[in-house]
Amino acid sequence: MANHAVGIVGATGAVGAELMSVLADLKYPVGSLHLFASERSAGKTTTTPFGEKTIEVFSVEAAQKCDVVFLAVSGEFAKEYGPKIAEKALVIDNSSAFRLDDAVPLVIPEINPETAKGKKLIANPNCTTAILAVALWPLHKAFGVKKVIVSSYQATSGAGIEGMNELLTESRKVLDGQPADHKVFAHPIAFNLIPHIDTFQPNGYTREEMKVTWETRKIFGAPDMPISCTAVRVPTLRVHSEAVTIETEKPITVAAARAAIAAAPGVKLFDDPDNKVYPMPINATQQHDCNVGRIRQSLIFGDHGIDFFVAGDQLLKGAALNAVQIAQLFV
Amino acid sequence: MANHAVGIVGATGAVGAELMSVLADLKYPVGSLHLFASERSAGKTTTTPFGEKTIEVFSVEAAQKCDVVFLAVSGEFAKEYGPKIAEKALVIDNSSAFRLDDAVPLVIPEINPETAKGKKLIANPNCTTAILAVALWPLHKAFGVKKVIVSSYQATSGAGIEGMNELLTESRKVLDGQPADHKVFAHPIAFNLIPHIDTFQPNGYTREEMKVTWETRKIFGAPDMPISCTAVRVPTLRVHSEAVTIETEKPITVAAARAAIAAAPGVKLFDDPDNKVYPMPINATQQHDCNVGRIRQSLIFGDHGIDFFVAGDQLLKGAALNAVQIAQLFV
Repeated sequence: MANHAVGIVGATGAVGAELMSVLADLKYPVGSLHLFASERSAGKTTTTPFGEKTIEVFSVEAAQKCDVVFLAVSGEFAKEYGPKIAEKALVIDNSSAFRLDDAVPLVIPEINPETAKGKKLIANPNCTTAILAVALWPLHKAFGVKKVIVSSYQATSGAGIEGMNELLTESRKVLDGQPADHKVFAHPIAFNLIPHIDTFQPNGYTREEMKVTWETRKIFGAPDMPISCTAVRVPTLRVHSEAVTIETEKPITVAAARAAIAAAPGVKLFDDPDNKVYPMPINATQQHDCNVGRIRQSLIFGDHGIDFFVAGDQLLKGAALNAVQIAQLFV
Repeated sequence: MANHAVGIVGATGAVGAELMSVLADLKYPVGSLHLFASERSAGKTTTTPFGEKTIEVFSVEAAQKCDVVFLAVSGEFAKEYGPKIAEKALVIDNSSAFRLDDAVPLVIPEINPETAKGKKLIANPNCTTAILAVALWPLHKAFGVKKVIVSSYQATSGAGIEGMNELLTESRKVLDGQPADHKVFAHPIAFNLIPHIDTFQPNGYTREEMKVTWETRKIFGAPDMPISCTAVRVPTLRVHSEAVTIETEKPITVAAARAAIAAAPGVKLFDDPDNKVYPMPINATQQHDCNVGRIRQSLIFGDHGIDFFVAGDQLLKGAALNAVQIAQLFV
C-alpha cells in the first residue's frame, strides 16, 4: 500500500483538528501531511499525531501535489478551488457546495461506497444527515422506510470551535449573573434552545432541515422518500442527537430493529432502558459509531413503524470520520 | 365576589412558589392564604405577594377549612389526602395521581372547562401535555387532528428546584474542569441530554411520554387519537419546548394554522422567521401564554399536515398557571 500525501485545507478549525486525529486512529497511510490555512495562520507550527507541522498558505498548486485533499472550509471556497484541485488530487469536501450536484457523489461508506468509484471530487454529507442515515440505512434495507420524521438536538460544534466557545463563555456569564451576549448564534444559546440552524427557505424550513431531506434521499437513492426534520440547536458541545419516527413498508418489531442495528456497521446498539442505557451526548462524544437506542414500536404506525433515538459525534461521523472513511475507499 | 381561603400544600417547592405569584398576577380573590409544608419547614415565615406568611404543618382538618386547596406534592400524598380534603374544599391536584381516573376531570380551562362543573377534586395535567394541548386544540377544532408526533426538549424545572440547582451546580463544575456528579437526574445533565424522564413502561416508552398520549386523549375527549412522544431532558432551566408534526382530517395551510393559533387563548403566535422570531426558552420564560411558531407545511402529510414548535413555561402553563385557571372556573 503506497503512502499518501495528505492535505487538509482549513486545518485550524474544529473539523481540521479532528481530521488529523481520525487519520491516525484509522491508521490511514499518511506519507506526508500538509496543513493549509489562511495567511493569518501560515508559518505557525502545530502538533499533530504525525509530528510537528508548519501551516502552509493554501495554493491550488500546492494542494494538487497531494494524493488526497480534505476541504474543511466554506462552501464558497470549495466551489472556487475544489474542482481545480480535483484535476490532480482526490478531493473530499466537507461543505455543502457539491452535495446536491448530480455529477458529484455524496458518500457514506457504509451506505453507497460504489458511487465514489472513479470520482475525484466527493462530497461529505451534512452532519445531521450522516448521523441519521447511518442509523436509518440498516432499517431501510431490512424493512423499507416509507416516512421519516426527525427532531434534532444539535450541538454547538456544528458552528465550529467558535460555536463551542460561545456556549462556554455564555454559560459562565449566565452563572455569574451577567447577560449572555452572542455572536455566532442568532440568539444566546446557554440554557436556551434555538430552532433555527442555517438560513430559512421559502417553504419555512431551514436549510439545515432541508439538507436532511435532500441529502438522505440522494444517499439512499430514494428521490421521493418523505423525510422531514425540525433542527434545533441545544446547549451541548459536540454530539448531535435525533429523535426519529419511521413508517416502514414491511412489518417491523423492536427486536428485529435492534437486530438490524446491532448487525450494522457505523452504529452501536445502546438500548437497555432498565439499566439507563440509551444514546446521549456523554456516551457518544468522541466515539466513531453512532449510538442508537430507545427503540420502541410506533404508537402512530403500529406494527409498520418504530421510534428511535440516535446520538453521534458531529465532528466525527458528522464530519471528519466520514471524510477519512471516504478516502479509505481509495486506499 | 366572595374572597376565598386558599391553601397551598407543598408551598416550599418550585410549583408552590409559582402558585403564589400566579394567584397575585391573575388577581385571584385571595381572602386568606394558608401555606402547608412538611414539619421541617413548618413555623418558618416566607414572603408572599399576600404578605409575610408562616408555614403551617399540613393536616386534613386545616386544609378542609380552605375554600380551595392546591396540591403541589407527590402522587402518593395526593392519593392519600386529596379525596379527604375534597370532602369539604375544592382540591386541584398537580400530581399524576388522579389524572386518568374516570371520576376525576383533567382540565385545561381553554379546552374542557365544562368537565370541571360540580366537581370537588380536579386534576391538573402533566406539564408537557398542557403545553402541547393548548397549542394543538385550536388546530384540532379547525382541522381535526388525526396523528400527533412530538419530540420534547424539557427543562430541569420539571424536577423542581432541585433539578434546576443540579443543572447550575453541574454546569459550574464542568466549566471548572471537574467531573459532573448527579443525584436528581439519571445522568449528568450539564452540556448533555437525557432521553429518559419518569420510569420506563413495558412498551419501552417512558411514563412521561405515555402521559402525553393518555392525558391529551382524555382532555380532548379523543380516546383513540394516535399520539406519540419522545421526551428528552435538556440543559435549560424552566421552559419545555416541543417539536410537533400533525396530520389533519381537513386540508390545512400555514396561513390558516397561524390564524387559528393567533385567535386562540393561552397561546401566542411567535412565527416570524425572517426576523428570527420563533419560540425559545428565553422568550417563553415567565410568560403565561405558550409561544407557537416554526409553522410549516408538512413534508410528510402534504396539505393535510403541518409542523410547528411550541415553548411554554413548565412552571406556569405546565403547572401553577393552569391550576389557578382551574380554580378561577369556580370564582
